[in-house]
Amino acid sequence: MAPGPIRTAHKVDFDKPAWEQTGLHNRWHPDIPSTASIKPGEAVNIECMDWTGGQIGNNDSADDVKNCDLTRVHYLSGPFDIEGAEPGDMLLVEIQDVQPFAHRPWGFCAIFDKNNGGGFLDEEYPQAAKAIWDFEGIHCSSRHIPGVRFAGLIHPGIMGCAPSAELLAEWTRRETELVETSPLAKVRDVALLPEPKSIHAGAAEGELKAKIGREGARTIPGRPEHGGNCDIKNLSRGSKTYLPVHVNGAKFSVGDLHFSQGDGEISFCGAIEMAGIITFKFDLIKNGQEILGMKSPVFLPGPVEPQFGPGRMLTFEGFSVDSQGKQHYLDVNVAYKQTCLRVIEYLKRFGYSGEQIYLLLSCAPVQGHVAGIVDIPNACTTMGIPMDIFDFDISPATAAKNGGVNAMDLGSCAYTSDRK
Amino acid sequence: MAPGPIRTAHKVDFDKPAWEQTGLHNRWHPDIPSTASIKPGEAVNIECMDWTGGQIGNNDSADDVKNCDLTRVHYLSGPFDIEGAEPGDMLLVEIQDVQPFAHRPWGFCAIFDKNNGGGFLDEEYPQAAKAIWDFEGIHCSSRHIPGVRFAGLIHPGIMGCAPSAELLAEWTRRETELVETSPLAKVRDVALLPEPKSIHAGAAEGELKAKIGREGARTIPGRPEHGGNCDIKNLSRGSKTYLPVHVNGAKFSVGDLHFSQGDGEISFCGAIEMAGIITFKFDLIKNGQEILGMKSPVFLPGPVEPQFGPGRMLTFEGFSVDSQGKQHYLDVNVAYKQTCLRVIEYLKRFGYSGEQIYLLLSCAPVQGHVAGIVDIPNACTTMGIPMDIFDFDISPATAAKNGGVNAMDLGSCAYTSDRK
Amino acid sequence: MAPGPIRTAHKVDFDKPAWEQTGLHNRWHPDIPSTASIKPGEAVNIECMDWTGGQIGNNDSADDVKNCDLTRVHYLSGPFDIEGAEPGDMLLVEIQDVQPFAHRPWGFCAIFDKNNGGGFLDEEYPQAAKAIWDFEGIHCSSRHIPGVRFAGLIHPGIMGCAPSAELLAEWTRRETELVETSPLAKVRDVALLPEPKSIHAGAAEGELKAKIGREGARTIPGRPEHGGNCDIKNLSRGSKTYLPVHVNGAKFSVGDLHFSQGDGEISFCGAIEMAGIITFKFDLIKNGQEILGMKSPVFLPGPVEPQFGPGRMLTFEGFSVDSQGKQHYLDVNVAYKQTCLRVIEYLKRFGYSGEQIYLLLSCAPVQGHVAGIVDIPNACTTMGIPMDIFDFDISPATAAKNGGVNAMDLGSCAYTSDRK
Amino acid sequence: MAPGPIRTAHKVDFDKPAWEQTGLHNRWHPDIPSTASIKPGEAVNIECMDWTGGQIGNNDSADDVKNCDLTRVHYLSGPFDIEGAEPGDMLLVEIQDVQPFAHRPWGFCAIFDKNNGGGFLDEEYPQAAKAIWDFEGIHCSSRHIPGVRFAGLIHPGIMGCAPSAELLAEWTRRETELVETSPLAKVRDVALLPEPKSIHAGAAEGELKAKIGREGARTIPGRPEHGGNCDIKNLSRGSKTYLPVHVNGAKFSVGDLHFSQGDGEISFCGAIEMAGIITFKFDLIKNGQEILGMKSPVFLPGPVEPQFGPGRMLTFEGFSVDSQGKQHYLDVNVAYKQTCLRVIEYLKRFGYSGEQIYLLLSCAPVQGHVAGIVDIPNACTTMGIPMDIFDFDISPATAAKNGGVNAMDLGSCAYTSDRK
Repeated sequence: MAPGPIRTAHKVDFDKPAWEQTGLHNRWHPDIPSTASIKPGEAVNIECMDWTGGQIGNNDSADDVKNCDLTRVHYLSGPFDIEGAEPGDMLLVEIQDVQPFAHRPWGFCAIFDKNNGGGFLDEEYPQAAKAIWDFEGIHCSSRHIPGVRFAGLIHPGIMGCAPSAELLAEWTRRETELVETSPLAKVRDVALLPEPKSIHAGAAEGELKAKIGREGARTIPGRPEHGGNCDIKNLSRGSKTYLPVHVNGAKFSVGDLHFSQGDGEISFCGAIEMAGIITFKFDLIKNGQEILGMKSPVFLPGPVEPQFGPGRMLTFEGFSVDSQGKQHYLDVNVAYKQTCLRVIEYLKRFGYSGEQIYLLLSCAPVQGHVAGIVDIPNACTTMGIPMDIFDFDISPATAAKNGGVNAMDLGSCAYTSDRK
Repeated sequence: MAPGPIRTAHKVDFDKPAWEQTGLHNRWHPDIPSTASIKPGEAVNIECMDWTGGQIGNNDSADDVKNCDLTRVHYLSGPFDIEGAEPGDMLLVEIQDVQPFAHRPWGFCAIFDKNNGGGFLDEEYPQAAKAIWDFEGIHCSSRHIPGVRFAGLIHPGIMGCAPSAELLAEWTRRETELVETSPLAKVRDVALLPEPKSIHAGAAEGELKAKIGREGARTIPGRPEHGGNCDIKNLSRGSKTYLPVHVNGAKFSVGDLHFSQGDGEISFCGAIEMAGIITFKFDLIKNGQEILGMKSPVFLPGPVEPQFGPGRMLTFEGFSVDSQGKQHYLDVNVAYKQTCLRVIEYLKRFGYSGEQIYLLLSCAPVQGHVAGIVDIPNACTTMGIPMDIFDFDISPATAAKNGGVNAMDLGSCAYTSDRK
Repeated sequence: MAPGPIRTAHKVDFDKPAWEQTGLHNRWHPDIPSTASIKPGEAVNIECMDWTGGQIGNNDSADDVKNCDLTRVHYLSGPFDIEGAEPGDMLLVEIQDVQPFAHRPWGFCAIFDKNNGGGFLDEEYPQAAKAIWDFEGIHCSSRHIPGVRFAGLIHPGIMGCAPSAELLAEWTRRETELVETSPLAKVRDVALLPEPKSIHAGAAEGELKAKIGREGARTIPGRPEHGGNCDIKNLSRGSKTYLPVHVNGAKFSVGDLHFSQGDGEISFCGAIEMAGIITFKFDLIKNGQEILGMKSPVFLPGPVEPQFGPGRMLTFEGFSVDSQGKQHYLDVNVAYKQTCLRVIEYLKRFGYSGEQIYLLLSCAPVQGHVAGIVDIPNACTTMGIPMDIFDFDISPATAAKNGGVNAMDLGSCAYTSDRK
Repeated sequence: MAPGPIRTAHKVDFDKPAWEQTGLHNRWHPDIPSTASIKPGEAVNIECMDWTGGQIGNNDSADDVKNCDLTRVHYLSGPFDIEGAEPGDMLLVEIQDVQPFAHRPWGFCAIFDKNNGGGFLDEEYPQAAKAIWDFEGIHCSSRHIPGVRFAGLIHPGIMGCAPSAELLAEWTRRETELVETSPLAKVRDVALLPEPKSIHAGAAEGELKAKIGREGARTIPGRPEHGGNCDIKNLSRGSKTYLPVHVNGAKFSVGDLHFSQGDGEISFCGAIEMAGIITFKFDLIKNGQEILGMKSPVFLPGPVEPQFGPGRMLTFEGFSVDSQGKQHYLDVNVAYKQTCLRVIEYLKRFGYSGEQIYLLLSCAPVQGHVAGIVDIPNACTTMGIPMDIFDFDISPATAAKNGGVNAMDLGSCAYTSDRK
């Protein structure tokens, strides 16, 4: 007969530190003990902490952001054994729903300090800042960034299957090589290598836990062989993702839920981070990696995304010439950074601070495109801002008519107590 | 009373070489003589040659691509004086229509030889290739890439106002610096500096022409201060672009019309290049650069773009790890290249050659996004392929059901006669 | 500081009959006692029974549909006093979310017996039938209509403010006049007049309850002055509706939640009916009826609707010529009925029964348009079917290629035990 | 090798009256001589007059509308023989493009006098009026309805294959029956029966022409068996329509080109009527009527339609209660009329006349939906107005903030010289 309510395969406990909950873990490693088993075809709910495990509070100070311990993150739910999964299979992951907890209708986005996580614009905005977002059904708004309100394209930042021991070794090899050879590594972190500090490996204890601490891959980067922290805003309700399986049972993990995110998630903790519940249905394509020739995840977005109409997307351009006028060679990173800076310059005239806009571009449903990438020496990127997320008119036509706009009082985001 | 037919402000002549037509030019320079004058508020048609000025033929050989003379390009129509425009203004450019000539219902896209233009994947595909596209109203199809057919999002690749002498000098300074300092400059072109060879400066003759040849900026790159060859596929019918004015009269030029282009235009001559007619209406925002604080072009796309539904976009991911397994630091270029390669691998199974897909990704309305750019060391990019442009089913679900698909006979793109 | 969880202004009790719960009512009347008070600007949850108050079960028989007592329906939650609302105001109702109960992840749609409710095609399909739909996050599927699966555009069928005594009298007058003068009234119900039987007036008892029974307007029809049962599928998450206020406190009620509905809701109980929770935020426009000149509700849909792409909507046409070949005069009802019948004929070839498709067109996100209404004597209507809700290809191109399709085994909807 | 320019299968001559051009006709009849032959798979251009054959001028008087001779219309281009077509086949018609003539960049929409054509609201607006629209690429605007500008969803109002003699007889039978039995026929035209006056049957002369005049079906109504004047706004560029074939060679005709139309085309000559060029490709599905079970046309819209985003559609509701307060039984016509009147009331506050809005709703891309059609006695219909076609803000939120809006000077549409 009819199915009953959807089974909850994993529950989180807000009365207990994340690091004491056995169904969470903060490294990628094949030996982290599975926390539950799920059948293909079965719909299940999985509860998730926010990515920091609760380090960030719903308040008006960014001190918690500045002091956030990044060796602890991300707290992922899992790993889950998918029955019958074997190396070489593809795991088909359908996201049926994602929701915040009814009792925690809020999230946060943050600029991390340049010396603790940083972000895409940390040269320009090196100090920590934060915005809290309140959820009202599908919408969100922030007391720290007044004047905007939008529907979230809710999604998990991280999904992936555990690496095999061989794959894990390869990850460590290539990231270590980068750290050892990159000239930039002297002035900033270029990769985060395995780190025993604050390791949390679910139910693992003793030597197993220590081993995972020594070997386990950090969860910050997405990686091509399994996805992981890819931070793709379109992996929302209704999406179907094909993930490569590397170990028996797949050992699937999920976390880092986002109420909304802009393309690039530029302020690092840029999405609206939240704790919540995600509903999945899994299926297996046996031997799918060979049959489909897939080495990286592939997905189909769901059919329901916020629609603004192309004519409502105010779109900015950026090229591979940096703020000092230096010409770079087809560098998309430089171009996208310039694009972001152009938006910030433009929106400041309405009364926002640079930090507010930096946060907004990170979390609102902005579209970041690679427009042209072959016209030496300039790559061109674009960022489209949906004008309808603002409750005032930001169009250039209106702004010009108003002689360039009188700035409004648009409040302030949360800063640190020792801000200079 | 009612307006009559729209005035044609510039006509091209297919019976005459591009380099003999005084209303065309192939460098950016403030001294190129204006070819016509246009009033703000007036709708005008402007005819354009294809970007090469007719060097590429509607045939089945890529020899013309291999031998294409890149010192000649792009042939732009203009410059046009916009009455009343002064430095500091913003020129508002509304594109009312773009169309191929009725008597030339075809276009081309091409892979350029690694030693003559190259492209985003020129390590993988170093030899010239070509596809001819036939236009059937809003649709196009190619005898060189059977099995696909799509509606074009038609647009100009290049629009911009002439640089001032100061701006031109700055362009040359920074691009020269790149050429002189980039280690890569030893093995490939990293920028194209002013080049007197094949200079065409409209009606300019003698010393003026020689001066423009010595000083004029090449048209290949887009540049932040004026737009130029930005190759943004969404600058289609109905779009409104705000362009900075740098000289009296604006001296606006346009060219490089594209029937369709994918995000990135990855094969360099990747859009479906065509000759055609573009209809504009101009408006001026006096002192707009200061009033609006705009240093680079900004635009609003038009309201009519092909709509496929998000659930019909098969989307691939790529990260900053290259094909040799080398880890790069947040490099979007590497990530986007990997994304493209993933699509090529996937679509090959249906029977296409790598070159066919490389061409297809360059010209079809694919969506290339910067997904995540802060999770060290991996940037993540995505490319979404609209499945409905194919006349067979490319979905992974169907492909898996068919055991991985039997390759079809999907013909061949055009190659050079001396292909190795 | 930050708001806490959203307050639940009304809870339903599944352990108690609907008719014993004081916060529900099944007639429109100004004297039904208010069940709770809500402030403008406050977000609240309101729980709702399904429209029948639980008369229809999750099983495989349509006997409960056949025997459904329509004097009992609809059970609405409310009325709610909106603080400060006065006659002449407009109540702005933002729907922030609508969701089924986690413990009841299913709904139903039904064909009602011609002699008990009927429906748009009750000449053709006079007997009761039913389909149960299971919810999987934003998607639903039915064991009674295999081969389809779609995302719901979830919404309430009924929202409205209580009528004033004068408005109520006008409703009764005009509907009584119809019953008394319509020739059709001899062969079928043409309107449902006030009916004391099964009256439920919330907390009202004794003479007040009897009075409401004698006078209260039935909830079946929507009505222009307040909305009510308008069954508009687009009043989903994020929509904002302007409702006229007729009594002090507005006395707003809501119910008849739908997981999904097609334009027309043609089988009467055609939407996917469910119990659930709706989240609102209210605002008041004082004297809004005069200021805005609004006599009927007006709304803005929300930004997130399922998007299929226009090219994926297989669209059928119908005209004002009925199945017996009789010509009617610009009759949209006849045209829309013919349109529906055309879809049924077409989809039957895949193996569905007429009842299955009739149910499907009622509840799936089909688009029903008035195409032309002035070309005497034929009105033309269209119905667009999103092809992507089917897990097989229904396109005519494929069907023709297959020689007209071999019917599949597509099961059966639920019928009555005494079906002839 | 490559195809050349698209062949023009039919040219119109603006220097000659429509009734003297042999490739046009204004009745449906199987014996009208074919004007040209077209191969399946061949793309062809077909030129069309406007539907009146040039009776309406680009001027500021509606006298020509008042005096328009409706026995002359519509002037259709054709009939065209499609090679190989036989009765029982389906003709697949792909519209590749539709465009106005470059030398006639304008169109008209009109309210017809109640005694000469009438319209959906001819009780409320009985006198003739007109608006001229100027085309600027994909956009149009009108000096008679200032403040709006929109992209056209360009399409033919009429496409169809010739009826067989038997089908023609059936049309005449049922329409004659309506005229003879409808009580309404005493006060207004309810159908237009065959009419020899002003008959134009292409190259037919003498007795054949006289016979066609006696028997030929009028072109005003669409009809279920062949489509005809269905006035469906979505049959635009890229659409594919399946049309039943009734005679050898199909004898396909087309005309009544519309630059844009709203759902319902409510003012009768409500679309923006124009002369222009349509590009087709035909294909045949042999025996398709039986194979696909299709008795009426079916279509797939093209992929490019104006997109406004659902949240930008201000939507009005109407029910089956007329302006005198009379209750009708599930009458969609009454409901849709009320919906239109609600929009007119609302928009008048900005300064438009009723006629201007009546014209605007007829031709702008408004969405008219059948929302609910089963809740006795009230059908509910909606009309969605894209707010972005106005160059001022029509949202109720802004209007309320402005205390109900101060009317602007929005000019006037064209009226007759004898207007009372």
